[in-house]
Amino acid sequence: MLTDVEIAQSTVMEPIKNVAEKIGLTEDDLELYGKYKAKISLETIKKVENNPDGKLILVTAINPTPAGEGKTTTMIGLSQALHQLGKKSIVAMREPSLGPCFGIKGGAAGGGYAQVVPMEDINLHFTGDIHAITSANNLIAAMLDNSIQQGNPLNIDTRQIVWKRVVDLNDRALRHIVVGLGGKPNGVPREDGFDISVASEVMGILCLSTSLEDLKARAARMIVAYNYDGEPVTVDDIHATGAVTLLLKDAIKPNLVQTLDHTPVFVHGGPFANIAHGCNSVMATKLAMKLGDYAITEAGFGADLGAEKFLDIKCRQAGLNPDAVVIVATVRALKMHGGINKKELGTENLEALKKGIGNLTKHIENIKKFGLPCIVAINAFPTDTEAELKLLDDMCKELNVEVSISEVWAKGGEGGIDLANKLLNILETEESHYAPIYSLDMPIDEKIKTIAKEIYGADDVVFTKKAANKIKKFTAQGLGDLPICVAKTQYSLSDDATLLGRPEGFKVTINDLIPNTGSGFLVAISGNIMRMPGLPKVPAANNMDIDEEGKITGLF
Amino acid sequence: MLTDVEIAQSTVMEPIKNVAEKIGLTEDDLELYGKYKAKISLETIKKVENNPDGKLILVTAINPTPAGEGKTTTMIGLSQALHQLGKKSIVAMREPSLGPCFGIKGGAAGGGYAQVVPMEDINLHFTGDIHAITSANNLIAAMLDNSIQQGNPLNIDTRQIVWKRVVDLNDRALRHIVVGLGGKPNGVPREDGFDISVASEVMGILCLSTSLEDLKARAARMIVAYNYDGEPVTVDDIHATGAVTLLLKDAIKPNLVQTLDHTPVFVHGGPFANIAHGCNSVMATKLAMKLGDYAITEAGFGADLGAEKFLDIKCRQAGLNPDAVVIVATVRALKMHGGINKKELGTENLEALKKGIGNLTKHIENIKKFGLPCIVAINAFPTDTEAELKLLDDMCKELNVEVSISEVWAKGGEGGIDLANKLLNILETEESHYAPIYSLDMPIDEKIKTIAKEIYGADDVVFTKKAANKIKKFTAQGLGDLPICVAKTQYSLSDDATLLGRPEGFKVTINDLIPNTGSGFLVAISGNIMRMPGLPKVPAANNMDIDEEGKITGLF
Repeated sequence: MLTDVEIAQSTVMEPIKNVAEKIGLTEDDLELYGKYKAKISLETIKKVENNPDGKLILVTAINPTPAGEGKTTTMIGLSQALHQLGKKSIVAMREPSLGPCFGIKGGAAGGGYAQVVPMEDINLHFTGDIHAITSANNLIAAMLDNSIQQGNPLNIDTRQIVWKRVVDLNDRALRHIVVGLGGKPNGVPREDGFDISVASEVMGILCLSTSLEDLKARAARMIVAYNYDGEPVTVDDIHATGAVTLLLKDAIKPNLVQTLDHTPVFVHGGPFANIAHGCNSVMATKLAMKLGDYAITEAGFGADLGAEKFLDIKCRQAGLNPDAVVIVATVRALKMHGGINKKELGTENLEALKKGIGNLTKHIENIKKFGLPCIVAINAFPTDTEAELKLLDDMCKELNVEVSISEVWAKGGEGGIDLANKLLNILETEESHYAPIYSLDMPIDEKIKTIAKEIYGADDVVFTKKAANKIKKFTAQGLGDLPICVAKTQYSLSDDATLLGRPEGFKVTINDLIPNTGSGFLVAISGNIMRMPGLPKVPAANNMDIDEEGKITGLF
Repeated sequence: MLTDVEIAQSTVMEPIKNVAEKIGLTEDDLELYGKYKAKISLETIKKVENNPDGKLILVTAINPTPAGEGKTTTMIGLSQALHQLGKKSIVAMREPSLGPCFGIKGGAAGGGYAQVVPMEDINLHFTGDIHAITSANNLIAAMLDNSIQQGNPLNIDTRQIVWKRVVDLNDRALRHIVVGLGGKPNGVPREDGFDISVASEVMGILCLSTSLEDLKARAARMIVAYNYDGEPVTVDDIHATGAVTLLLKDAIKPNLVQTLDHTPVFVHGGPFANIAHGCNSVMATKLAMKLGDYAITEAGFGADLGAEKFLDIKCRQAGLNPDAVVIVATVRALKMHGGINKKELGTENLEALKKGIGNLTKHIENIKKFGLPCIVAINAFPTDTEAELKLLDDMCKELNVEVSISEVWAKGGEGGIDLANKLLNILETEESHYAPIYSLDMPIDEKIKTIAKEIYGADDVVFTKKAANKIKKFTAQGLGDLPICVAKTQYSLSDDATLLGRPEGFKVTINDLIPNTGSGFLVAISGNIMRMPGLPKVPAANNMDIDEEGKITGLF
C-alpha cells in the first residue's frame, strides 16, 4: 500500500494557473510561489467582493481519538466528489504548523486519495505565512522588552507582561524560562515563556481580518502587558503596529493549491482549536464563497471546540451564514469512545460502539441547536463490520439525520459521491436557521456557562478566584460584550481528557481568562491547557529525509 | 530628494522571467515567488555546471563608520555600469536579516539609484530562506533538549551544550536565559541563550554547500553538545540530519532579482562578517560565474573581516579564483577614521583625511598580500571637496593603485562608468596570483597569529587559558587543519572598536574557540562579540508602516 507522501508524489499536478482558471482567475490575479502554489492578490479579492455567495458547508467531527477520524480527508474527498458531479466546489482549510509535523503527525493535508498537494510544501514552509506570524509576534516581544530596557516610559509592570514569544515547533524546554539575565546591557530579568506560533494572537487576527486595514486596526489593539496602574499596554503603545502590519502584508493573502483531482483549495491560516479559535482565515472562506458555488471548510478538533468557535466567533464576526454541517466519525474512533483500547479496534464490538455513539449523538444535537442541517459522514475502514455500520445507521435514523459511508481515503472523489449527493439534497430541501448559541450581551460568566451546559453537556461551571476576578475586571473595562474562546482539551466533551464518549454529571473549571482584544474574544482557560507542545520519545522528524534527487520520505 | 524606498517604488520592474532570459534562462529554470523574484532550480544549476567561468570580482571596503561607506550600493552600481558598457555582469550578494532592518539599518539592498528590487520584499521575508534556517536551527535545539528529556541516551552533559536557539531579530533579552523550568514535564533546567539567525551555523553550511548532498553531509557533522566523556555529539547523533536537510530544500536554491536597471542579481545567504564568515552562498557566486562574464560579489563589513574570510575560507573551500578586488571608501568615513566626529563631516578637513587614509592603505596592502589586483572606489558625497579628492588620488598613485570616483548613488549605472572601465582595464592587464594568507597545515595558533599580524597589523595575539585549552583539544581531535573564522569587532582593524584609522602596537586577544565542523572552520572569538544584537532607543521599526493601498514607508 502506498503512503500518503508516495500517493502525493505520484500525482502529476496541474500548473496552479490552470486550477485558478477553473474558478475564473487569470495569471494576473495570482502571485505564484513556484508552479503549484499561489497567493491571491488583494486587488482580486476586492474585485470579486460583489459576486453572489456560494453555499457554505462546515466539516466537523467527533472528539478525536488515537484511532483517527479523518476530518480533513473527508472534506477534501467531498470537494473532489462534488467536482465529479459537475459542481464548482472550493475547499477553505487551515495550513499546518511545523510543530506537530515534526512531532507526532508527520504532516496534515488529508490522506490517501483525498489529499491537497504539493503536500510536502504545504507541510513545510508553504508560502511563509506562519513564519511571518512568528516574526511579527516576536518583533512585538522584542520591542516590548526594549521599551522597558530603554527607561520604561510606559511604566510597564514586568510582572504583568502577557505577550509571549513564539516558535513554530514543539519545544517544551521553552515553556517556562527566565529572560534578561546577564546584567544591565542584556535586559531586565523576568519570568517568561514561549508558545507555539499557531497559538499567537497574531494568528488570530490574521484569520479574522477582512482586509489589510482591519488587520492593522486589530494589531494596534492587542494587549501586551499592564502598567503599574493596571491599565493595558497595547501593540500601538509600543509603536509596533506599522511594522507588524508590514510583516504580514503577504501572509494576509489566501493561498491557492489543488486536490489530487486538481480542484481548487485555499489553505490559509492555522490556529489550533484547543488553545485558539481553530478556523482558517475569514478571507479564504469568503473568497471560496465568492468564487465557488460550494465552499467547504473545516474547524479544528471536535465539534465542541472547532464548530462551536466557527459558529459563535468566526461566522458571527464575519457575517457568514453557514448552510449545512458534515460531522465526521469512524467506527473505530467511536469504539474507542466506548471504552476499548487501540489494539482491540480490529474486532467487532457492538457494545463498545453503542456506548461510544453517545459522543456522535451529542455533537449532532449540538449542531441542531445552532439551527443547522447536518449529515454524518462515516469515514470507512476495512475493519468496519456490517453489523457495526447498521448500528450507526439505525442511530442516525432515530435522530432523523442523514448518514453516508465515505470511502474517499481509498477511492478519492468517487468514494464520496454518495456523501456529496446526500449533502446536495439537504442543501436543496433543508433550510439553515443558523444562530449563535449565546448572545453577546450576556454577562461573561453566563456565556461560558451556556457553552459548557449546551455544548459540552456540563452540569455547571466552576470559576477559580483568579478567573472570577478577571471576569469582574474585564466587565469593568468594557470587554464584557466579546465572545468567548474556550481553551480546553480536545479529547473529551468535558474538560477532563479521560472522559470519553458522552460524559455526564461533570463540571467545567475555568482557571483564567485572557483578553484577545485584537482577535475580538476572551480566551477562557479550562484545565491545564498547553500552549506549547513537546516532542514525543521518537519524533516524526527522526524518520524524515530527502535524497540527492530531492525525493522526500517520512512525511505522511 | 527621494528616499530609497521611494526610488525603488517608482521603478517599473521587469518580470523576473525577462531578466532571467538575459542570462540564458527560460521559465522552466525558475521557481517564481511572485512576478519579481525567483529561485533557480537545482536541475538548472547542474545543467550549467560545465559552462566556462566568468571573471570573479570581490567588492570590499574600509572599516565601517557611522558615516557609511556604501559598499553594496557601489557593487550594484558597478554591475549596472558594466551592463551599460555591454558586458554580461551578474551580482551575487547576501540577503538581509530582519534584525538590523527593524533595528538601526531599516533595510539593505543598496541605495539611491543603485538598488536591488523589489527592495521591500528583499528586506522583509524575501523567499523565506532565513526563516528556513531559523526553523532548522531551532528544530535541532528542540530535538537535542528532547533527547535529554527522554532519558538522555547520548549521555549529553547539559553544562556543555553549544547549540543555541536563534531568532531573526535584535532581541537582547534572549541573550542569557534559563530554560526548562517548571518541573519534570517541562524539560531539564539549564543556562541557554538565543543568537540572531544569521549567526547560526546552519547559515554557514547553507552558504558553503555546493549541493543538497553536500549540505546534508555538513548538517550531519555539526556539533551540538559534548557528552560526559567530553566527546562531541552531532546533529546526526540526535537523528536530525534528514529533517534539517528537508527544511532547507528550497533555501539552498539561489534567488534571482534585479537592479533598478533590470540587470540580474542573485541574493542568497546572509551571514554577518563579524560573528560569522560574511559571504553570500557559494552556489550563488558559482552560478553568477557560470551565467555571466563578470560575477560581482561582496563580503560583509571591512576587508579585514569580509574579504579575509572570502579569500581564506570561501574561495579556498569552493575552489574559486577571484580576479580582482574593489575597495570602497568615502571621504567622510575616512575623515571619521581620522578622528573627527559625525557633525564635522560637512567641512573640509585634510588633516583628518590624511590620518584616516591609513585605514584604506592598510586594506590595499592586505589585498595585495593575497596576490590580487585592486581598485579603490570613492563613493562620492556632495560635501567632498576637490582638495580632499586630490589627496586621496595622490595617496593611491603613491601606492600604485587605480582609483575612481563613483557616483552610482546619485546617477545609477552612469555614475559607475569610469569605475567599470578602469576595472575592465585591470582585468585585461593585471593577473591575479590569488593565494590564501595562511596554509591549512599551520598550527591553529599560528593561523590566528598570521591573520592578526598580516591583516589586522597586530603585534601579537594573546590567547586566554580557555582559548589555549580549546586549541589543544581541537588539535588532538583532528580539527587542526581547519581554516579560521575570526569573530571580531567590525569597527577597527584591531579587536578594540575605538581604535580607528590604522592602529599600531596592539595585541589581539582570543577568548574562546568554537568548532563549526559543518561549515568547516574554527570560530576564534576576540573581545566581547555579541551574537545577538539589541534594539536602539528608537528602533527603525517604530517608523515603518503600510497603508491600505499597500504603500510602504519607513524602509530605507
